[in-house]
Amino acid sequence: MNLILLDGRDGPDPRHVTLSDARAAHLLNVLNVTPGQAVRVGILDGPLGVGTVESAEDGRVTMRCVFDADTPHRPQVDVLLALPRPKVMRRLWAQLAALGVGQIILTNAERVERPYFDSHVLAETCYRPLLVEGLQQARDTRLPAVSIWRQFKVLVEDHLTDSSAKGFASWRIRAARCPSGRRSVRMRIRRVLIAIGPEGGWNAFELALLQEHGFRPVSVGSRTLRVDTACTALVAVVHASMQGR
Amino acid sequence: MNLILLDGRDGPDPRHVTLSDARAAHLLNVLNVTPGQAVRVGILDGPLGVGTVESAEDGRVTMRCVFDADTPHRPQVDVLLALPRPKVMRRLWAQLAALGVGQIILTNAERVERPYFDSHVLAETCYRPLLVEGLQQARDTRLPAVSIWRQFKVLVEDHLTDSSAKGFASWRIRAARCPSGRRSVRMRIRRVLIAIGPEGGWNAFELALLQEHGFRPVSVGSRTLRVDTACTALVAVVHASMQGR
Repeated sequence: MNLILLDGRDGPDPRHVTLSDARAAHLLNVLNVTPGQAVRVGILDGPLGVGTVESAEDGRVTMRCVFDADTPHRPQVDVLLALPRPKVMRRLWAQLAALGVGQIILTNAERVERPYFDSHVLAETCYRPLLVEGLQQARDTRLPAVSIWRQFKVLVEDHLTDSSAKGFASWRIRAARCPSGRRSVRMRIRRVLIAIGPEGGWNAFELALLQEHGFRPVSVGSRTLRVDTACTALVAVVHASMQGR
Repeated sequence: MNLILLDGRDGPDPRHVTLSDARAAHLLNVLNVTPGQAVRVGILDGPLGVGTVESAEDGRVTMRCVFDADTPHRPQVDVLLALPRPKVMRRLWAQLAALGVGQIILTNAERVERPYFDSHVLAETCYRPLLVEGLQQARDTRLPAVSIWRQFKVLVEDHLTDSSAKGFASWRIRAARCPSGRRSVRMRIRRVLIAIGPEGGWNAFELALLQEHGFRPVSVGSRTLRVDTACTALVAVVHASMQGR
């Protein structure tokens, strides 16, 4: 936890908060804070700042916070992901938030098993704390937007248009993970949406639909990776590529 | 399991093998193989090929194998890793083998807790099957070389020399993960060794020693990542960079 993230649930005024949950336990038991000590804080989807500990005892930490740093930029990479197994998806939430993604779009595909959509890892009460954990790891305040689509065709045809009001407007290049796609990832653009298929890969119809809608096949090499490893690898490669190397 | 890897333990002649372990269970229960069916096989540190199922029953699979494909190239990326927590290290073995690394060099550092070195995840009986699992995922046969060094200074000063006989000879660029290092990773070279610090980072002495010995600070962005996420991200970025993008 490299940042203490605050949100509306911490009271009406983030400049003066009392914490008594896992964040307080971290401050007390890992950082061993004492009154007067400064810690990094941030407001969810807002600016970064510094909190000064006023009191720290009995499992509670009270701080006065000043938010004088900028709000981090929204990450320029979005991920469209054929819903993986719940166990994998549970691991991915924090990893994706830590790596930095603007949106996480989960979708059905032929090779996605239907019961995955009933898993509690898709409940906001489950994934939100995991996303926040990833943000606190990476010192970011920008909560990724999450959307879940049971109909792949409807998603791709109707909701990934460049003129969409949903914030998809500025995508310029899209990438479909495809074992045979050998094009490497290199770009100088504003936003990238990476589409990552299920364990068995996208089927021919899905690949064709993605390509019709502006996606290009890319590859991080000829190796077949697990979905979570592939996600981390692709997001990292795209981020590195967009940093103008 | 996208490849069935065979080694000396499977009998003297890999052209005719009978399996009865997890590989047999995968062939029987996941791939549902029947006599006559072809499956991808490989010899550990040897060539790839095709196995034809002769019999599949009672938890045993017998195959005739032909190894007519090339031996994969040894991956051009090596990793020097300050030993992470055993739980993290356990996850990393298969991930690193799947991503493709030639060597995994584990070392001590000031911020590595000593008891980590006593963990059974450093026993070959523990990590070898995990490495093989990663190779079978990625369809590779090249087992990463593993070495464990309790003395960081001895490792860096005496065993990372370019003229070493230990296979370190062809490194041209080295990278030390460093939170403040903003140099991006881009290179056209034969081998890269990536040095990834502990959760708390390398200390000043360790960073200086790495830099004295040819390492340059690199970064995959300003975010602070967990060691396992950072490993995957860095190895992927270096691989992508070396593929001549």
